[in-house]
Amino acid sequence: MKRDRARDLLTQVADGTLDLEHALDALVLDPTESLGFATIDHHRALRQGFPEVVFGGGKSAEQVVAIAKRIAERGDGVLVTRVAPDAAALLLDAMPGIECNAVARTAFLRPAVASPVAKSTVLVITAGTSDLSVAEEAAVTLDSMGCRAERLTDVGVAGIHRLLSQRRTLEDAGVVIVVAGMDGALASVVGGLVRVPVIAVPTSVGYGAAFHGLAPLLTMLNCCAAGVTVVNIDNGFGAAVAAARILH
Amino acid sequence: MKRDRARDLLTQVADGTLDLEHALDALVLDPTESLGFATIDHHRALRQGFPEVVFGGGKSAEQVVAIAKRIAERGDGVLVTRVAPDAAALLLDAMPGIECNAVARTAFLRPAVASPVAKSTVLVITAGTSDLSVAEEAAVTLDSMGCRAERLTDVGVAGIHRLLSQRRTLEDAGVVIVVAGMDGALASVVGGLVRVPVIAVPTSVGYGAAFHGLAPLLTMLNCCAAGVTVVNIDNGFGAAVAAARILH
Amino acid sequence: MKRDRARDLLTQVADGTLDLEHALDALVLDPTESLGFATIDHHRALRQGFPEVVFGGGKSAEQVVAIAKRIAERGDGVLVTRVAPDAAALLLDAMPGIECNAVARTAFLRPAVASPVAKSTVLVITAGTSDLSVAEEAAVTLDSMGCRAERLTDVGVAGIHRLLSQRRTLEDAGVVIVVAGMDGALASVVGGLVRVPVIAVPTSVGYGAAFHGLAPLLTMLNCCAAGVTVVNIDNGFGAAVAAARILH
Amino acid sequence: MKRDRARDLLTQVADGTLDLEHALDALVLDPTESLGFATIDHHRALRQGFPEVVFGGGKSAEQVVAIAKRIAERGDGVLVTRVAPDAAALLLDAMPGIECNAVARTAFLRPAVASPVAKSTVLVITAGTSDLSVAEEAAVTLDSMGCRAERLTDVGVAGIHRLLSQRRTLEDAGVVIVVAGMDGALASVVGGLVRVPVIAVPTSVGYGAAFHGLAPLLTMLNCCAAGVTVVNIDNGFGAAVAAARILH
Amino acid sequence: MKRDRARDLLTQVADGTLDLEHALDALVLDPTESLGFATIDHHRALRQGFPEVVFGGGKSAEQVVAIAKRIAERGDGVLVTRVAPDAAALLLDAMPGIECNAVARTAFLRPAVASPVAKSTVLVITAGTSDLSVAEEAAVTLDSMGCRAERLTDVGVAGIHRLLSQRRTLEDAGVVIVVAGMDGALASVVGGLVRVPVIAVPTSVGYGAAFHGLAPLLTMLNCCAAGVTVVNIDNGFGAAVAAARILH
Amino acid sequence: MKRDRARDLLTQVADGTLDLEHALDALVLDPTESLGFATIDHHRALRQGFPEVVFGGGKSAEQVVAIAKRIAERGDGVLVTRVAPDAAALLLDAMPGIECNAVARTAFLRPAVASPVAKSTVLVITAGTSDLSVAEEAAVTLDSMGCRAERLTDVGVAGIHRLLSQRRTLEDAGVVIVVAGMDGALASVVGGLVRVPVIAVPTSVGYGAAFHGLAPLLTMLNCCAAGVTVVNIDNGFGAAVAAARILH
Amino acid sequence: MKRDRARDLLTQVADGTLDLEHALDALVLDPTESLGFATIDHHRALRQGFPEVVFGGGKSAEQVVAIAKRIAERGDGVLVTRVAPDAAALLLDAMPGIECNAVARTAFLRPAVASPVAKSTVLVITAGTSDLSVAEEAAVTLDSMGCRAERLTDVGVAGIHRLLSQRRTLEDAGVVIVVAGMDGALASVVGGLVRVPVIAVPTSVGYGAAFHGLAPLLTMLNCCAAGVTVVNIDNGFGAAVAAARILH
Amino acid sequence: MKRDRARDLLTQVADGTLDLEHALDALVLDPTESLGFATIDHHRALRQGFPEVVFGGGKSAEQVVAIAKRIAERGDGVLVTRVAPDAAALLLDAMPGIECNAVARTAFLRPAVASPVAKSTVLVITAGTSDLSVAEEAAVTLDSMGCRAERLTDVGVAGIHRLLSQRRTLEDAGVVIVVAGMDGALASVVGGLVRVPVIAVPTSVGYGAAFHGLAPLLTMLNCCAAGVTVVNIDNGFGAAVAAARILH
Repeated sequence: MKRDRARDLLTQVADGTLDLEHALDALVLDPTESLGFATIDHHRALRQGFPEVVFGGGKSAEQVVAIAKRIAERGDGVLVTRVAPDAAALLLDAMPGIECNAVARTAFLRPAVASPVAKSTVLVITAGTSDLSVAEEAAVTLDSMGCRAERLTDVGVAGIHRLLSQRRTLEDAGVVIVVAGMDGALASVVGGLVRVPVIAVPTSVGYGAAFHGLAPLLTMLNCCAAGVTVVNIDNGFGAAVAAARILH
Repeated sequence: MKRDRARDLLTQVADGTLDLEHALDALVLDPTESLGFATIDHHRALRQGFPEVVFGGGKSAEQVVAIAKRIAERGDGVLVTRVAPDAAALLLDAMPGIECNAVARTAFLRPAVASPVAKSTVLVITAGTSDLSVAEEAAVTLDSMGCRAERLTDVGVAGIHRLLSQRRTLEDAGVVIVVAGMDGALASVVGGLVRVPVIAVPTSVGYGAAFHGLAPLLTMLNCCAAGVTVVNIDNGFGAAVAAARILH
Repeated sequence: MKRDRARDLLTQVADGTLDLEHALDALVLDPTESLGFATIDHHRALRQGFPEVVFGGGKSAEQVVAIAKRIAERGDGVLVTRVAPDAAALLLDAMPGIECNAVARTAFLRPAVASPVAKSTVLVITAGTSDLSVAEEAAVTLDSMGCRAERLTDVGVAGIHRLLSQRRTLEDAGVVIVVAGMDGALASVVGGLVRVPVIAVPTSVGYGAAFHGLAPLLTMLNCCAAGVTVVNIDNGFGAAVAAARILH
Repeated sequence: MKRDRARDLLTQVADGTLDLEHALDALVLDPTESLGFATIDHHRALRQGFPEVVFGGGKSAEQVVAIAKRIAERGDGVLVTRVAPDAAALLLDAMPGIECNAVARTAFLRPAVASPVAKSTVLVITAGTSDLSVAEEAAVTLDSMGCRAERLTDVGVAGIHRLLSQRRTLEDAGVVIVVAGMDGALASVVGGLVRVPVIAVPTSVGYGAAFHGLAPLLTMLNCCAAGVTVVNIDNGFGAAVAAARILH
Repeated sequence: MKRDRARDLLTQVADGTLDLEHALDALVLDPTESLGFATIDHHRALRQGFPEVVFGGGKSAEQVVAIAKRIAERGDGVLVTRVAPDAAALLLDAMPGIECNAVARTAFLRPAVASPVAKSTVLVITAGTSDLSVAEEAAVTLDSMGCRAERLTDVGVAGIHRLLSQRRTLEDAGVVIVVAGMDGALASVVGGLVRVPVIAVPTSVGYGAAFHGLAPLLTMLNCCAAGVTVVNIDNGFGAAVAAARILH
Repeated sequence: MKRDRARDLLTQVADGTLDLEHALDALVLDPTESLGFATIDHHRALRQGFPEVVFGGGKSAEQVVAIAKRIAERGDGVLVTRVAPDAAALLLDAMPGIECNAVARTAFLRPAVASPVAKSTVLVITAGTSDLSVAEEAAVTLDSMGCRAERLTDVGVAGIHRLLSQRRTLEDAGVVIVVAGMDGALASVVGGLVRVPVIAVPTSVGYGAAFHGLAPLLTMLNCCAAGVTVVNIDNGFGAAVAAARILH
Repeated sequence: MKRDRARDLLTQVADGTLDLEHALDALVLDPTESLGFATIDHHRALRQGFPEVVFGGGKSAEQVVAIAKRIAERGDGVLVTRVAPDAAALLLDAMPGIECNAVARTAFLRPAVASPVAKSTVLVITAGTSDLSVAEEAAVTLDSMGCRAERLTDVGVAGIHRLLSQRRTLEDAGVVIVVAGMDGALASVVGGLVRVPVIAVPTSVGYGAAFHGLAPLLTMLNCCAAGVTVVNIDNGFGAAVAAARILH
Repeated sequence: MKRDRARDLLTQVADGTLDLEHALDALVLDPTESLGFATIDHHRALRQGFPEVVFGGGKSAEQVVAIAKRIAERGDGVLVTRVAPDAAALLLDAMPGIECNAVARTAFLRPAVASPVAKSTVLVITAGTSDLSVAEEAAVTLDSMGCRAERLTDVGVAGIHRLLSQRRTLEDAGVVIVVAGMDGALASVVGGLVRVPVIAVPTSVGYGAAFHGLAPLLTMLNCCAAGVTVVNIDNGFGAAVAAARILH
């Protein structure tokens, strides 16, 4: 609850227009809403600037739809990530206007009133074709938060000139998101080339000693270019939210 | 075997009403029962206060049913955990009155005579909707052991007010079980808010660097709120037994 | 802050004896105290039932003494854990009456008024002589929290009769703390013998594939005796707090 | 090649009945046989006392049959482990008299002339019903190597009396194989009770922090009962061969 | 080299005022400078906006001084991190005006002309007193890059009210750096409270299953508050550079 | 871009036959080609001596075909590795003359003009039949790069004579690739027998504590025979490229 | 307690020469002896055939001497392992006749009456000079248990002929202990050469990816020669006890 | 033993100039020499082309000197790696002409007759100043094996132009050794720039999630530039031997 709301409540108590126990409850409790299997946080938009996002992993298709519909009723739009194909089908049926992206595994219903768009763009760079799904998740999330995403695809360091030839694109970005699996070395090179914030997303692409993304995760955490920050493996969503926090 | 039983046996030996070799066997051997592929421990109720529980994982549906039926013949009821769907179907056929819970993956046959119910309640808190299966396993187990479970669902620390608004519920519990995956941070916050015992259950919910529950497990073991104890990943059953040990 | 205190504040607001801004501050802010390098939480005793405990690890001797003295001024006593020898020497100089235990690496100043003592005792069992330091940390902590500790030393499962011969002691305890390194198997055996809560503490005793306590930690988390809970490696303090939460 | 054979060859060279180049080849090269995708080692029986065993994992059903038939032509019998169901079906068709054991996942063709049977028996103990598959693999392997196996099933340490009541059985064995998953604590207790060699087999039974057998593996390697040795996770076959080496 | 410089060179080639081979060298080679054991990158300030920083770890005191002096000759100032005490002593002797901070393990020589200072402040929050060294490294680095740092110390989640009482401070920051060891849960709570970028720094504070910072690292990567990014364990420097990239 | 090409460009600038901006672009940008989801690097053949190879893992069958066709249009041939069965079927349809190898999981279209063949051969040794897939991937890759591969199959160290009997074959090779799972010990023995370069490929063959190839990977990295180098788990392709680099 | 002793006790009860309570105690309790910090198990010799061995690690020099003296009073001799230099000095002072071996880090007091010596010898093979300490610990332990040890030093597989030239020695042993660090490959080769039991001891010799013995441990657990068993890293003592169990 | 030698022996047997038992011994045994704690392999030069190298780690200074002197008596020179300072001092005393390199931690006695020098050079590249010790070990080893080493120091990818400006140097090398800690990304970039063999050496430089070299090790194993091979962490010696195997 915001401080202003608290001041109102206390004024009412002083005025005698609100009794003690109700004020006490209002001060302690918060307008969350329970669906039994989920507790929706309708105040998140106030606190964080973005509507609540539904993580589709580990939820049944029915749970996903029920939560998404309830949030959407507020008119702020809703974004669902890690949408399984069966949940996507259900969502398309149940919520007209929702946009499902199979590569990104997202479902997005735009808010009634579009959010203002940030001035700078976010450049989403991938090391290989296999990293596209994570990059798309980032791009859709950026879109849902009023940020424009540009893409630079398949420019891994094994052919460093592919990246160097795009230096103008690099220099124009307000934030750079680097998506890479296997050796994850792209983050270090990009981090050394630009002065804007760089967010690195390790992916589970690769095999053997990549250990499902552990290798690029460690590479990126030990990035010799200072100031590169890292999010969880395959977490394109998290990288996009961090970029949106920076631009807004 | 209980000391009283041993005293009886020795008295009989002193009386001459029991010969040496039989007494010797009774003192050393225990009334366990072998089904070939399993050794049932009919004395567990005496020793531990609860009937033997069957862990369904890694057992064929036929083995599960055979063991459950044999235990149930004693009339003490039986609880089966990690019941696969085929085993649940077989159990429903073979054992009238057994209650199967698909979310909790449990099958529970109530004892002929209900156990006495503990005075305090156990509060089972989950960080997210995806943790529900583990929380339900805990709730069913508590029920089978004469403890009342209350639930508080989807109150992870990313929206800390959802939890703080429930402080009265927190204060009323006799034991709190915290079920959380991903960052597992909920256990630390709850541990700092209540004075009763807190049992933390890491779940395998999450992806990437959650490493199938390793991340919340480590978080909970390093919990900066003193006195929080931890059970195995996804082990709602174990947390419930620990809570029941505390309340009884 | 406790609900009673909040009710008082609101009553004063209603009475006009407290102005809005002060009430607002009191409701939101908490009487913590900052030493620059530390923020002391004087309300912890109210919330948790025990005074704040100082973790000596990673703090300079001077920092430890400054924090301990500040807490002690309240008269509630103070417990310091992981006290390095130089900090112990400084504490003995600076705080008359403080008791330093070199094996447990603790410093304890009793409160002016002794806390009430719990009825049941806590039995602290160690698998080997090398686990004594951790067990002593638990025992001193229990003492500081008004719990009586009994000890059973060096009864690891390689000689199972050492443990079995003490079943009467096991049965008399209200809570059992099992401290073991290497294979950590003692927790499983004890967990199967008693019906009271069992808290397992893995220790970093051992070598090679013990990996500084990882082996007994995993053993205890996978304990086949249901209801055993686990704390961090070498965390005798945490086990004792958990036991005190149970007994109070 | 055995030294005797080498002596014969050199004698023939000295006699002039064998020319240099042929002797040279015979001394350096060995009568292995190549099937293109496999190199059969027909001398293993001479060197190790047992016929070559085929590891079925990672081989196609056709490869398994081709290798098994080729070995069987020698008349020494053949044992195949980790037989997938399709390979088992093919083997039953192709090799009359072969015995397939679905629990143990083995296929065994007895040699034309039975091997002599060792005097002592090997006791195979399992902690739980879920460990049976590994225990059966050990039992079949022992049979194939002329050793008698006795079984003691589901006697994990959570109910220690189940084990203690079988001390006579324990004392009669020449070697004990302990098969256990989860906490693996059974190996430590058995190791402390008997004086004969104890071979511990961790199993991948369990979940969460069992990490597919890592937990019992570490427990067993850190076994506080001295002299317990360990084989790979789920390696009932290896434990049986080690036991056979001891008894022969 | 910047594109402008390249355009100049090509213009000179077109004018005939620069011969081919020299232009070729200038286009390919870069004005780095080799000290034999180090290659100084004098253009980093142009590319990244900050002077080169010397990582003191793994270098001899003599190497550190030689590199630092060479960089300082440019007048852009120099920052050295992870300065061992002997290197600090040498630096104080060799470079008048250099400021050594023992807690932060840094040495900083201000540039001749002070950099412009960013408008927003960076709030550096620590969970415990033991995290201070890492937080100080961040604060000194921020200072060296023209950013103002505010500190909030010892507000870990075990006493969540210590943090909640500082919400106004949280809301005023432009970027928040969260420094925490043990359970690392502070990052999740802070991430849920503010809308600005949050950079989490796990520390190696703690023991046992903290595994030298692995536990808080995993916690932070799995942070359930979206948009929190992470740097390497104990890497206060890296977090500060990331914050500076955001503010500039 | 090669230095010769750069010299030409600069000459044209000096001659006035090329204007500044075009020269600038040509010097900085590189003739890569974007397919949207992939950036093809047509200069790799110039830089590395081999055409671009397509890693089929994590790409859809349609993406694989699109990329492979685009590369093949140059006439330099194309090699695809980790080809899933559906991609293989599509490739056979779409690209006449392409050779699909199901064991090696490769698709190879020979270049219009065969590359020159290296003088020495590469010996590919496998420890067991289950390692054949990785060995075949190496052999096909060698073929695609103008190197002849010889094979020595199923000669693991458990029957060391199988290897020792092939010393002449070992001595004739120019490079040896050792493919082994489980204990990976074959690399150490081969490394001690030959003087030519040895490249070790750990495989994910095995179970339990092989941890999907981690065990042989560590074995090979710790190889007590000096000068053995290692590639990623199951990376037959990488070993072959390394061998080709050596022979060319 | 042995069954014979139990029979005597019961006979006395039947005879009336022993009262109930005393018999009860004797049947349940065991003649262990507590030193406060240690519980000595005087019956181990009866149960296991060897006197109790003192593990010196993690014990103070004073504790080691107190325990060793108490055991030695029985006249059965005593063996102390992992003896730190200061404990060795104290032991030499306090216990005349004790033999301290600095390489093996052992102290051994022979029993008054020598144990019978086993017929077969145990061959202790080391891969390198750096493994000697572990091998010596094994040799001293074997000596203390009535087994003769032969040594074969520095015959690692990088020079396989060093081992092959000793095949006669290999064939003469009753048990082989293989001590190896780094790649641990020696165990596989030896396991394939002999038919007697092979016990592998990984050592912490090596660096980097040897990870303090993890690499050879995994190698040995995945040993492709069947029937090789493994003990903990650096556990020469455990290997020796296992060998003694086999020979006796 | 070489095949020629074997032919001679057999000829003598045929001639009757050599009796059977002596020929048998000569064929089976090899001229290794035992020092008790070490078995010197005087034939290694024949087999591998280089004299035996002494690994100084884990050996006492006295052992190092004894082994080095014994090898040197052959006149082939000797190289000792990982020489501790005390061993270096002893070696300088005992062996005139030996060259000790403190940075590389090596001691090298040149052979009486210099080996022929390879035509191509080996380029040893380091990412940072802190990697110098490993690079020097490689350089000294190359020198001892008749290879010329060139050095390129401190050219990590955070300032990629430092490397790109040296492309002529890169192109002139016959083999490239890349030495890098932290993110290890340099290997990927170099692997994409050159066509000759690239050997990557991860170093333990770095902190936190570098995990003593694990991070760059994984990076290099997952190198997206094909054909890069890897040696153990900090193993400059092994990389040099691999390079020498390639050049000879």
